Amino acid sequence: MKTQISLEDIYAPIEKHLPAVEQKILEVLATPNELSREVIRYFFKAKGKFLRPALCLFGANFSDQIDPTVIQNAAALEIFHSATLIHDDIIDSAYLRRNLPTINSVWNSQVAVLVGDYLHDKAIGAIFALKNERAISIFLETAGIVCDGEILELNEKGNFSLREDQYLTIIEKKTAALLSCCLETSAILAGLPEDDVQILKRFGTYFGIAFQMIDDCLDFAGKENEFGKTLGADCAAGVLTLPLIRLISLVDEKKKNEILQMVESGFAKENFGKIVKYLEEYDALQYAFRKAREFTDRARLELSVLKDHPAKRSLNSLLDYILERNR
Amino acid sequence: MKTQISLEDIYAPIEKHLPAVEQKILEVLATPNELSREVIRYFFKAKGKFLRPALCLFGANFSDQIDPTVIQNAAALEIFHSATLIHDDIIDSAYLRRNLPTINSVWNSQVAVLVGDYLHDKAIGAIFALKNERAISIFLETAGIVCDGEILELNEKGNFSLREDQYLTIIEKKTAALLSCCLETSAILAGLPEDDVQILKRFGTYFGIAFQMIDDCLDFAGKENEFGKTLGADCAAGVLTLPLIRLISLVDEKKKNEILQMVESGFAKENFGKIVKYLEEYDALQYAFRKAREFTDRARLELSVLKDHPAKRSLNSLLDYILERNR
Repeated sequence: MKTQISLEDIYAPIEKHLPAVEQKILEVLATPNELSREVIRYFFKAKGKFLRPALCLFGANFSDQIDPTVIQNAAALEIFHSATLIHDDIIDSAYLRRNLPTINSVWNSQVAVLVGDYLHDKAIGAIFALKNERAISIFLETAGIVCDGEILELNEKGNFSLREDQYLTIIEKKTAALLSCCLETSAILAGLPEDDVQILKRFGTYFGIAFQMIDDCLDFAGKENEFGKTLGADCAAGVLTLPLIRLISLVDEKKKNEILQMVESGFAKENFGKIVKYLEEYDALQYAFRKAREFTDRARLELSVLKDHPAKRSLNSLLDYILERNR
Repeated sequence: MKTQISLEDIYAPIEKHLPAVEQKILEVLATPNELSREVIRYFFKAKGKFLRPALCLFGANFSDQIDPTVIQNAAALEIFHSATLIHDDIIDSAYLRRNLPTINSVWNSQVAVLVGDYLHDKAIGAIFALKNERAISIFLETAGIVCDGEILELNEKGNFSLREDQYLTIIEKKTAALLSCCLETSAILAGLPEDDVQILKRFGTYFGIAFQMIDDCLDFAGKENEFGKTLGADCAAGVLTLPLIRLISLVDEKKKNEILQMVESGFAKENFGKIVKYLEEYDALQYAFRKAREFTDRARLELSVLKDHPAKRSLNSLLDYILERNR
């Protein structure tokens, strides 16, 4: 029987640098503005997985040295990610994030809009201060792609004919692009050979797609407390993700209409249970998990070309970790 | 009897460059994303005063040549400004902007959050592409200041003890900083002598403060149709501006409570009329207009040092123009 891999073990090669990233985040966001300070303190009190800083550090770790630009890049990308989360929570009207009430629910969506903007600006300022033109360009392009992905997702809300390829485009843009950007920019800042930069970039994309697919599965299969978000939130908001797209493609017209009605009504608890039952019956959740595994396989293949290194082992373990999250 | 100065006359020295700015805005914002395209087309259909591009062009016009970086800078700053307007309209729950329903009312606040983010990112990308480190730094710093000013304003919502100096800090940050940035960055891009850059920067700050003060007066004194916004919106949202700050500082406790109650209740039409009557009775609107004139005087003093030039005449006329807006 396999034991669950822990993030602590995976992060071991880079963990000594994480406090410096946390420190840098607070430094970049320091402000005399009381309201901003209060909101920022509140938001960063709940620690996320710090996945983006970790990827930044792993990308650079292949060079066996982590210099200040890498720390700053990691801090900036986590801040940027936080800005998108804060705005996402307005868009999804979410009330829970990392087991804490969201900014839009503790304060209001006005505060969330502006503090999100503030974080966004500060992230860009910190990236710009790196004075690495290539890293800045990649980051700015990525910021545009992430936003574009979110607008696409919003535009497809309530579209019950969404196809798997459209879903894939959306998650590649809204999630994978930034994870890939973390690895690519930090590999560039660390001066890795161009081939390695490209391998890490592609790894990031495949990893990111798998990561989002599993996240979407957990929207149906997770436990609310452990997951730290509202279960069924995407679905209730009319956002179709892979399990439901698969299910709808398999059922007959009558069941399809029944499911659509449940989703459209914003479904009550008992309807959510019914949808989960259908997902099981039609193997739709497992289908989505298998799809995710296809992408972790691709990611693993990319890594296989790199020299053996603690960072490589960690990135491989990270793939196992996200696959095991479904349990 | 003085005739009202027209913006067309003021813009004459730079008007031939405005279509290039409009063109560049559309070019920077081009996207295959249908929803984004539709929203962007809708937003830019209603022409604003194009004040920020005009200031950019005037700043550069002193050098008697407008090169492509100046056009791009002007486009980027107008896009950035548009992003803040779109987010502002969410924050203020405004339903009218430039005589057209706002994005948050035609679509919803989710779309407005994301399209605002998209414009914000594209503006920064366009500024970055200028490859002028000083202009980029000034812009990024300004973006932070604008956002900080808006958070300050939000934090002071419902604070009926707001002082005039606090109000001044807020409007300097949320409005004057960007107008000043337009003149400063374009003067830099056009290669003006450092002294002139500093003069134009200060002119922009004073002009911006006066501009916002008069805008705030028009929230009470304007005509809804001509002004293109919802009258009394700030006040109804609990945002205290100079006329009301002045009024509250003058009235006795009883009247003060009466006013606060009207403002707190989000006031109905008849209450708004009552407040306007009080503003007149206590000369509070005229006080605010006089304060605005103090700042246009300072702005004029700055300009007086510059050589005679069509751009200088236009900037002076712009001061007259905003002062005459109160009629």
